[in-house]
Amino acid sequence: MAVSKRDFLWAFASGLATASTSRIATAADNPVAADNATAHAAAGHDMAGMPAHWHGSEEIAFLIYPQFTALDVFGPHYMLASLMGAKVHFVAKTREPVASDFKVAVVPTATFDQCPKNLDIICVPGGSNGTLAAMRDKATITFLKDRGGRAKLVTSVCTGSLLLGAAGLLDGYRATSHWLARELLRDFGAEPVDQRVVVDRNRITGAGVTAGIDFGLSIVKQLRDEDYAKTVQLLAEYQPEPPLDAGTPGRAGASTTKLVSDMFVPFMDEVRSFVRTNSR
Amino acid sequence: MAVSKRDFLWAFASGLATASTSRIATAADNPVAADNATAHAAAGHDMAGMPAHWHGSEEIAFLIYPQFTALDVFGPHYMLASLMGAKVHFVAKTREPVASDFKVAVVPTATFDQCPKNLDIICVPGGSNGTLAAMRDKATITFLKDRGGRAKLVTSVCTGSLLLGAAGLLDGYRATSHWLARELLRDFGAEPVDQRVVVDRNRITGAGVTAGIDFGLSIVKQLRDEDYAKTVQLLAEYQPEPPLDAGTPGRAGASTTKLVSDMFVPFMDEVRSFVRTNSR
Repeated sequence: MAVSKRDFLWAFASGLATASTSRIATAADNPVAADNATAHAAAGHDMAGMPAHWHGSEEIAFLIYPQFTALDVFGPHYMLASLMGAKVHFVAKTREPVASDFKVAVVPTATFDQCPKNLDIICVPGGSNGTLAAMRDKATITFLKDRGGRAKLVTSVCTGSLLLGAAGLLDGYRATSHWLARELLRDFGAEPVDQRVVVDRNRITGAGVTAGIDFGLSIVKQLRDEDYAKTVQLLAEYQPEPPLDAGTPGRAGASTTKLVSDMFVPFMDEVRSFVRTNSR
Repeated sequence: MAVSKRDFLWAFASGLATASTSRIATAADNPVAADNATAHAAAGHDMAGMPAHWHGSEEIAFLIYPQFTALDVFGPHYMLASLMGAKVHFVAKTREPVASDFKVAVVPTATFDQCPKNLDIICVPGGSNGTLAAMRDKATITFLKDRGGRAKLVTSVCTGSLLLGAAGLLDGYRATSHWLARELLRDFGAEPVDQRVVVDRNRITGAGVTAGIDFGLSIVKQLRDEDYAKTVQLLAEYQPEPPLDAGTPGRAGASTTKLVSDMFVPFMDEVRSFVRTNSR
């Protein structure tokens, strides 16, 4: 058992190390999807001895839209891309690079049409004005309704849950969002829950930004097992030590919380205005 | 005072929300750098009342190289991009998209030549095989020696510290790295320290992957103040709740630690071989 685990993990490490060697991306050579299984096979390691359930074949898609919050994607992406055998897609309206709210541009690997029809996981990141624009974009909502209606797990990080809501995917579900936006979930028929990760049937929603890491690791545990997830956590050296204690309104205190809340009043108003003018 | 703070924060929020509206990236329209000051000014808010030290003009560069670990960049990037007035550059050998170890491609905003000569912060992310290849790449090391020799803060996340070491930038400094690679720092003349973030004069190094978030937030506190950093932490909802307790070798236990260590033996050997064949 120890030997087979080691064989597996060595294959996993080789996959991490070799995944891109043959495909250093250029504009003309944009990697379509991370197929870890292929990378592992290419590494030439015997994987026959590992527990069957440690190797999957999940199709995972992150929605990418203009002004998305990059860390909402790259926290869970680290965790989910560590699922051996999984394919991860970055799906957008076109294959042109998409700029985040902080202006870093990421290259999508698939258009809405190219995205696999039956996903194991669809994950929607948050943002502010960009999320509002995505809510108002018919092609984005049509894509979410379709893939979200079929996906095994329908998930979000931060205000991405508002987009799930706008696509009618949270009606009747318990869910969370960035703490600022959590109460807005009611406008989409969802029941807001003050938890870092909320699971209700096949809906899994994470709280604001950094909650995506806890969200992602919990999905790894769910889809593989605790030993697998421990390995991923140790690889990520995920033993957080925030240098301050201000990560929630309760910890940050009334003054900081009010300041941050005030700055998003226009965003909240715009979301409510969207709900009023769009029937679900 | 409360009013001026609020003005500031509202401007900050507007910057977050509007930073990219005029520049949705396409392949032909790649944002060169996030100039938050411009975005804030464009938002039309009066920022005269805020504390002068809350608005900076830092030039910050992340080194991007093939097979870098994306979360090593996007954790600290969230924090550092929140420094109002700072410009963030993604610097690579060419402006072609660069694929991470998990095959997500990011668009650089500057080449080595285009990167500002005098940086406030240079930050080097980690990886495994890609980091080794970068160590062996003369143009990368030349760039690091030059900008690292002039930068106000010379920083890294994860095995990025090995690259700093290869550029001779950690000789005689206390530093950290991914727990797996920490002892290798001795080969570059550094003194390894088992801490999540290590500060020695102007060298600031973070431990593995997720430590980049703690690293980034601590720099925000250093460059602005505690109130500013609290605001950023609350925006990021950074109140971590790992679903498992295996983030360090001590927490994960001997068995998981040995498995992970074993998978990186070849990487460690290659780094040592690099050191033997390259004089500093």
